[in-house]
Amino acid sequence: MGIIGESSKRFKEEVIDNMENIVVKYIEKVELNDPILIEGLPGVGNVGKLASEHLIDELDAKLMAEIYSIYFPPQVLVNEDGVTELVCNRLYCAKDVGNEKRDIIILTGDYQGMTPQGQYMLTDKLLNIANELGVNMVFALGGYGQGSMVDTPRVLGAATDSDLVQEAKELGVIFDRDHPASGIVGASGLLLGLGSKLYDIRGICLMGETSGYFVDPNASRELLEVLISFLGIEGLSFDALDDKAEEVEELTKKVMDMDLGGNVNQENKSEHLRYIG
Amino acid sequence: MGIIGESSKRFKEEVIDNMENIVVKYIEKVELNDPILIEGLPGVGNVGKLASEHLIDELDAKLMAEIYSIYFPPQVLVNEDGVTELVCNRLYCAKDVGNEKRDIIILTGDYQGMTPQGQYMLTDKLLNIANELGVNMVFALGGYGQGSMVDTPRVLGAATDSDLVQEAKELGVIFDRDHPASGIVGASGLLLGLGSKLYDIRGICLMGETSGYFVDPNASRELLEVLISFLGIEGLSFDALDDKAEEVEELTKKVMDMDLGGNVNQENKSEHLRYIG
Amino acid sequence: MGIIGESSKRFKEEVIDNMENIVVKYIEKVELNDPILIEGLPGVGNVGKLASEHLIDELDAKLMAEIYSIYFPPQVLVNEDGVTELVCNRLYCAKDVGNEKRDIIILTGDYQGMTPQGQYMLTDKLLNIANELGVNMVFALGGYGQGSMVDTPRVLGAATDSDLVQEAKELGVIFDRDHPASGIVGASGLLLGLGSKLYDIRGICLMGETSGYFVDPNASRELLEVLISFLGIEGLSFDALDDKAEEVEELTKKVMDMDLGGNVNQENKSEHLRYIG
Amino acid sequence: MGIIGESSKRFKEEVIDNMENIVVKYIEKVELNDPILIEGLPGVGNVGKLASEHLIDELDAKLMAEIYSIYFPPQVLVNEDGVTELVCNRLYCAKDVGNEKRDIIILTGDYQGMTPQGQYMLTDKLLNIANELGVNMVFALGGYGQGSMVDTPRVLGAATDSDLVQEAKELGVIFDRDHPASGIVGASGLLLGLGSKLYDIRGICLMGETSGYFVDPNASRELLEVLISFLGIEGLSFDALDDKAEEVEELTKKVMDMDLGGNVNQENKSEHLRYIG
Repeated sequence: MGIIGESSKRFKEEVIDNMENIVVKYIEKVELNDPILIEGLPGVGNVGKLASEHLIDELDAKLMAEIYSIYFPPQVLVNEDGVTELVCNRLYCAKDVGNEKRDIIILTGDYQGMTPQGQYMLTDKLLNIANELGVNMVFALGGYGQGSMVDTPRVLGAATDSDLVQEAKELGVIFDRDHPASGIVGASGLLLGLGSKLYDIRGICLMGETSGYFVDPNASRELLEVLISFLGIEGLSFDALDDKAEEVEELTKKVMDMDLGGNVNQENKSEHLRYIG
Repeated sequence: MGIIGESSKRFKEEVIDNMENIVVKYIEKVELNDPILIEGLPGVGNVGKLASEHLIDELDAKLMAEIYSIYFPPQVLVNEDGVTELVCNRLYCAKDVGNEKRDIIILTGDYQGMTPQGQYMLTDKLLNIANELGVNMVFALGGYGQGSMVDTPRVLGAATDSDLVQEAKELGVIFDRDHPASGIVGASGLLLGLGSKLYDIRGICLMGETSGYFVDPNASRELLEVLISFLGIEGLSFDALDDKAEEVEELTKKVMDMDLGGNVNQENKSEHLRYIG
Repeated sequence: MGIIGESSKRFKEEVIDNMENIVVKYIEKVELNDPILIEGLPGVGNVGKLASEHLIDELDAKLMAEIYSIYFPPQVLVNEDGVTELVCNRLYCAKDVGNEKRDIIILTGDYQGMTPQGQYMLTDKLLNIANELGVNMVFALGGYGQGSMVDTPRVLGAATDSDLVQEAKELGVIFDRDHPASGIVGASGLLLGLGSKLYDIRGICLMGETSGYFVDPNASRELLEVLISFLGIEGLSFDALDDKAEEVEELTKKVMDMDLGGNVNQENKSEHLRYIG
Repeated sequence: MGIIGESSKRFKEEVIDNMENIVVKYIEKVELNDPILIEGLPGVGNVGKLASEHLIDELDAKLMAEIYSIYFPPQVLVNEDGVTELVCNRLYCAKDVGNEKRDIIILTGDYQGMTPQGQYMLTDKLLNIANELGVNMVFALGGYGQGSMVDTPRVLGAATDSDLVQEAKELGVIFDRDHPASGIVGASGLLLGLGSKLYDIRGICLMGETSGYFVDPNASRELLEVLISFLGIEGLSFDALDDKAEEVEELTKKVMDMDLGGNVNQENKSEHLRYIG
């Protein structure tokens, strides 16, 4: 991949920045060697988030930091034990991944920034952290909403330079000059845009085709297949993702069947499915 | 309750921070010993606000600080004498409350922050103040809107740790893994979320079930019953709250009766009731 | 009026604060003795703005400062010669006004702050300036929209203390505990609220009753009648304001007549009238 | 034009300000002598943007700086090769232009600031840069939406002083006291308003009449005709702009024809045309 190694960096000691819009709480000190950043935040079909969460589970990645911010909703989630969790973004890390024994940082979370300014501020903060940790390559994972059912999801791409475009093409990624027509918005777009312009961090955005109507573990799987080729990871199980896809498919069918027998409208159905998984 | 006492703290001398988003104006210096913070700001059914105001009246709590902020509406209220009052949040305190002779700080006010950022900034400022005063336990009081009439309001809960969940369960608080489905938003949520993550302040949110259609002193009463068990307060009168509940009930009936004889629609009715009390 | 005189203050030399949200550009240095601030910014029926502009004309008040801000719309107005003017608020001053030879500062402008935060920031900045100039009394002029045609506009009031309420009652100002039900929003409200809480500046808000459907020079006149009694100003001409009122009345009649002959709906008509004068 | 020359200024060395709302990335160092700033950002009919881009092409102007900001959408555009570009504003420069051998800075970009505050902040930053480079004259290029088809677009104007108004009148610019009725909003307005009030920079806004329904290279051409008279530029080719105008016209006709044969509604058509060119 042409990512040139830098000397290893260490986390700062467990420390909390003061409440100035974005607070980073480091959970664990980890030494990382020339790490890659993989982002999978909530978005179209939750394709990126499902992919990054699957990766965290399969690679047994460790939580290393939580990011709280005034740019997230003022909200706690409540887990099944009745315990509250402040909404946040989370950084996980895994060491010695794949043939190349690469260190990996995975970003996921409950929300993206709620305002354009928040998106910029959060991504810039993240790139600052990534930069200090020696990251010089980002994979941004997301969905590409087609607005119609997708049988075999392709993986569309965009990258910060043409060498990366070339590399990705060889792995089957589609670069279609009309897709995405309006560019890439949100964290995935800014990680590439700010990364390349302000931090000399290269990046590629991989977008799994999806209807956009509901969560889509199938698109996440296609996307991960490309990613693991990139990273030289072998033997990654997709069982959990496939189970989830099956579950969604069954629910989809049920809702579709309702349609045959009744007058459930299309919009209600997709509303129902959006919140599965 | 397992709240470990800290050495007593003193308010700063009467002082006004400069107008930087949030201004705290201290009214009175008070020495507090290991105080507990109770929050009851406006929200669903005004359940939390009614509860905290009742507590202030019954415990004869003293106004100790007013909080003004650019995150509140740009508005003064006008009292019955024609005198203006800048909208604000207010901190009251009462000393030696209940069997345990606990000091208590009660937060109430005219509004919550009007923007997500404002919510974060206001709650963080409040936690700063609470932290300096030695608070390490927060009770956040609110309503849980069921969307349908509630005969006997239950008290639902969420807490920052499972010990508190356990304690609350023993006092009859319901921890239902589906409620609240979307977590807790606003000041109550953030007091627990930011409190536990950034200030080592534990907290529990108590939510009185209510229809959500109008102010609900009954839900406030149920909620206070739990709270005083927690705090070991005995002999608290609920007369004023019961009178208010009766008043609301009568008005509700009148509006319901209108329905039988006419075509007043449901929405107008609840609109009417929302602003009673 | 019980306003205690302070030693005279001088403007700073002509100077522009740097572009930090609010820029104050001083046009002229004036020595002021114990001045009173009168605010009349755009609002319901433009009652306050018309009143303050009339006062500026009749008292031949001089422009002393312009206030630009990111909280105003990003806009220039174009005058009849094709020359642009950045939207702003303006401070005028007049010396030795009325029997008491009072110095007066009049605030008017093209817009109020466009956001709640902007309202707070602008009013706070203004109070800072007023405070430095020795102001300890504010008159906030505005309209009170009744939602129906008003034949003889009353002047409603609200003040920062009960002595001022009493004084105003003696001059015929109405203090009705139900009006205004929701308090006073915007610059008028904040000048009183922030003024009394943070700057020890007393204030009274005078609100001329108006339909709220169109600009109302009549309401402005009633309001000014009260104001000049307060300030002991005699012999102020109302001719220009009366002419404007007549002009609006004629236009109102025309639009009303249209109604008799056709089906112009009520909303369109008031839309038409709102932008007259 | 009466623009008094100042000593030449140099760009700072290639440097990036830290991510504080607006980031200026200088691409190339250029020595400029008494330069003029020409602004053509996206707006009504994209008249200003088309004009400035045509000028950049014809004068072979060089990219000298990119401006990124939290006030732009959080977005990257993707070019035909699949490479991402962070949305930004761009400054180009051309030296020794026209008879007067003037140096010219041209501002264009993907977006204007998305919020009123952003508009102020971005324009102020730009004026800061312009001021340091010795700019004391700005041409703001835009469209004036008539809301109906325009056969022969006139060029309307507004300027910071009456001398400039006079000069422009002699070049055929229309100064109509009713146009624009609501002033000029956005970057064009603020460049003149903030420029003249805070930076002693004079300016004129030239607005090409356009329907406002679709991109309008014709209006851009009329506008450039005036501009090159102002600047004494001769022999500028309009071929590219004329080709674009023809292309738009053909598409317009096609859509109009659809109308004759079917029921394509007016709004869809203009939607279609808006994104051409």
